[in-house]
Amino acid sequence: MRRIYFDHNATTPVAPEVLAAALPFFCDDFGNASSIHSYGQRCRAAVERARTQVAALLGARPAEITFTSGGTESNNLAIFGIVENAEGPRHVITTTIEHSAVLNPCQALETRGVEVTYVPVNREGLVDPADIRRALRPHTLLITVMFANNELGTVQPLEEIGRIAAEADVFFHADCVQAAGKIPVDVERLGLDLASISGHKLYATKGVGALYVRSGTHLKPLLYGGKHERGRRPGTENVAGSVALGAAAELAMQKLGSESARLAALRDRLEAGILERVPLARVNGSREHRTPNTTNILIPHIEGEAMVIALDLKGLAFSTGAACSSGAVEPSHVLTAIGLPKEDARACLRLSLGRSNTVDDVDYALTIIPEAIDRLRQLSPTYNRKPVPADSKPVPAQ
Amino acid sequence: MRRIYFDHNATTPVAPEVLAAALPFFCDDFGNASSIHSYGQRCRAAVERARTQVAALLGARPAEITFTSGGTESNNLAIFGIVENAEGPRHVITTTIEHSAVLNPCQALETRGVEVTYVPVNREGLVDPADIRRALRPHTLLITVMFANNELGTVQPLEEIGRIAAEADVFFHADCVQAAGKIPVDVERLGLDLASISGHKLYATKGVGALYVRSGTHLKPLLYGGKHERGRRPGTENVAGSVALGAAAELAMQKLGSESARLAALRDRLEAGILERVPLARVNGSREHRTPNTTNILIPHIEGEAMVIALDLKGLAFSTGAACSSGAVEPSHVLTAIGLPKEDARACLRLSLGRSNTVDDVDYALTIIPEAIDRLRQLSPTYNRKPVPADSKPVPAQ
Repeated sequence: MRRIYFDHNATTPVAPEVLAAALPFFCDDFGNASSIHSYGQRCRAAVERARTQVAALLGARPAEITFTSGGTESNNLAIFGIVENAEGPRHVITTTIEHSAVLNPCQALETRGVEVTYVPVNREGLVDPADIRRALRPHTLLITVMFANNELGTVQPLEEIGRIAAEADVFFHADCVQAAGKIPVDVERLGLDLASISGHKLYATKGVGALYVRSGTHLKPLLYGGKHERGRRPGTENVAGSVALGAAAELAMQKLGSESARLAALRDRLEAGILERVPLARVNGSREHRTPNTTNILIPHIEGEAMVIALDLKGLAFSTGAACSSGAVEPSHVLTAIGLPKEDARACLRLSLGRSNTVDDVDYALTIIPEAIDRLRQLSPTYNRKPVPADSKPVPAQ
Repeated sequence: MRRIYFDHNATTPVAPEVLAAALPFFCDDFGNASSIHSYGQRCRAAVERARTQVAALLGARPAEITFTSGGTESNNLAIFGIVENAEGPRHVITTTIEHSAVLNPCQALETRGVEVTYVPVNREGLVDPADIRRALRPHTLLITVMFANNELGTVQPLEEIGRIAAEADVFFHADCVQAAGKIPVDVERLGLDLASISGHKLYATKGVGALYVRSGTHLKPLLYGGKHERGRRPGTENVAGSVALGAAAELAMQKLGSESARLAALRDRLEAGILERVPLARVNGSREHRTPNTTNILIPHIEGEAMVIALDLKGLAFSTGAACSSGAVEPSHVLTAIGLPKEDARACLRLSLGRSNTVDDVDYALTIIPEAIDRLRQLSPTYNRKPVPADSKPVPAQ
């Protein structure tokens, strides 16, 4: 069976170049990077080279990069690290559409007496920087806003928010997990003090990530142990993982321009094809401000997860939203935040393209997706079984 | 140059069988284990199989295994997870020779108002269970004692301590990072509620570990995000890492008996050879109660790190103590805890053997180690330059 993977926002395959870079560090150069003998020193050199590569992707200096176990840890370290390093009244500003690895730390902070403002987004899935400014309080300590949304792909106006944060002298963190490798991430231009990235969203391995921490910024560590990563993150260095992330960062920089254009063209072809073939389908979130690989489409009168399962049987992998919420009873908080009613929020497809995808993949998907939707809609109690013109409202059956 | 690696307590190479098991999960079966489509489900199955393999190594049930990013995170999750899940006066009992990934969390707890008793060890590097019992207080919540020490290899009487913990109704955690794969670890027999292991000490990859948590035990999580690992540990599952740890656990079980005997014979040959050839050399810690692969030898009148560097040039890798303390100015807290004066604590070699080592390695090491020691001692201001009989005390030079 032909297999097509349109779920690159959930995870990416390790790039062959990345695996080739990491492979020697499993069985051959397997040392502990903190050992002073040559096994250790070869690994130390590899980790530091990787740090330089990751720094280059973000426009940062190598010493500003801390390797972590992934995006979740990076976000937790940034948020708890800043907020728990301070005392007295503290206030954090975030948005309603952050990933759970930002929202849940914020909610945990609320139970510890920290005030948090969840700034809403508009129907396009975009934050208004003026809302961030209005949310500022005298004791605001941190603004944390994701660069690109994992479900919609929407890209937030970080540069403007960065200026607001700088003027207010407030720490500014961005979850850049879905942005890195898809759009340029320049911590200086964006005015970021902290930025999180994840290996497995960037064609590196799972279990590795990084946090950019602007030089001079003090964080309370999450973990206690050895003095690794300048005291920011104890634990034996994940050499192969760091090397993989470094190689992936370098590859992403090389490919960024050409691959973005290619993916945007594929995504647009896929999106237009679905809108053309599927009555009532419409795109969620801004089509202007979003990552080139992602489209999120509302298909009224279907159940998104039923679509995932039906198309999986045909060899097509995609999702309804965040993988870590798969199977959740609640509809996506991102889709309800942009104003979708619950039933519509359960009827959306997230299609996220990547390096391996081709025009043929898109064209094949355009034959099987409308077919599957049609079949599922025939079973829907709310869908008018007669063909419906694309611009009309469906008449509820019965 | 011939290369010999005697630093397996710092880290191990990934076993070829383990790499073979993990390799498909980088570029081929690369899904997100939380995705509901088949890419995800193949990874989910692999992670759950690995969980079963890790559980088997520890005599636990699969649902009692939480995958983490490594031993440091496992220890932190166990200690903070238990202590911060409780309120009111809390007391923790540990020992003076724990790894920094246990000692430093305990010290952090002290700054948060938790009382901690650091039970000393005897000159053999062993904890007396009676001291643990005496340290109990009405509000003791947790006893955390390492199974095998990373520097000495000494094995603590966990079974007796487990009985004390059970009688007192106190949680019992053991850092089993250095024990797993070297000696049997049976959480039921030892009476453990929590046990930490690390992949890279067990011929799996770096960046993965596990925490055994007895069924029914509640932990406050360290990280907040998705609902992975039954809510204990958010973050996209490290599929290849978990598979590697599972395969390594299974391999360790298969090899445990034969490999322990083989390593003990090699270690004893190495140790006896050094004691025979190097005047004044003596073994630190219990020779009876220790892991089969480790020897820690005091070589008075040398500087341990100078030895590491000198022998590294000859192709032999070993260490003076914990890799994560390499380059530290302070002498090892483990060696001072067994009563060594600071100058002696800086004059020790930790030789830790592993699967790839052979009798030839040992015999070659026995030609180059005494030679290097002799050369360094010639430079020592405190060593009598005349040959000294093995049983005599050195006469301080000048």
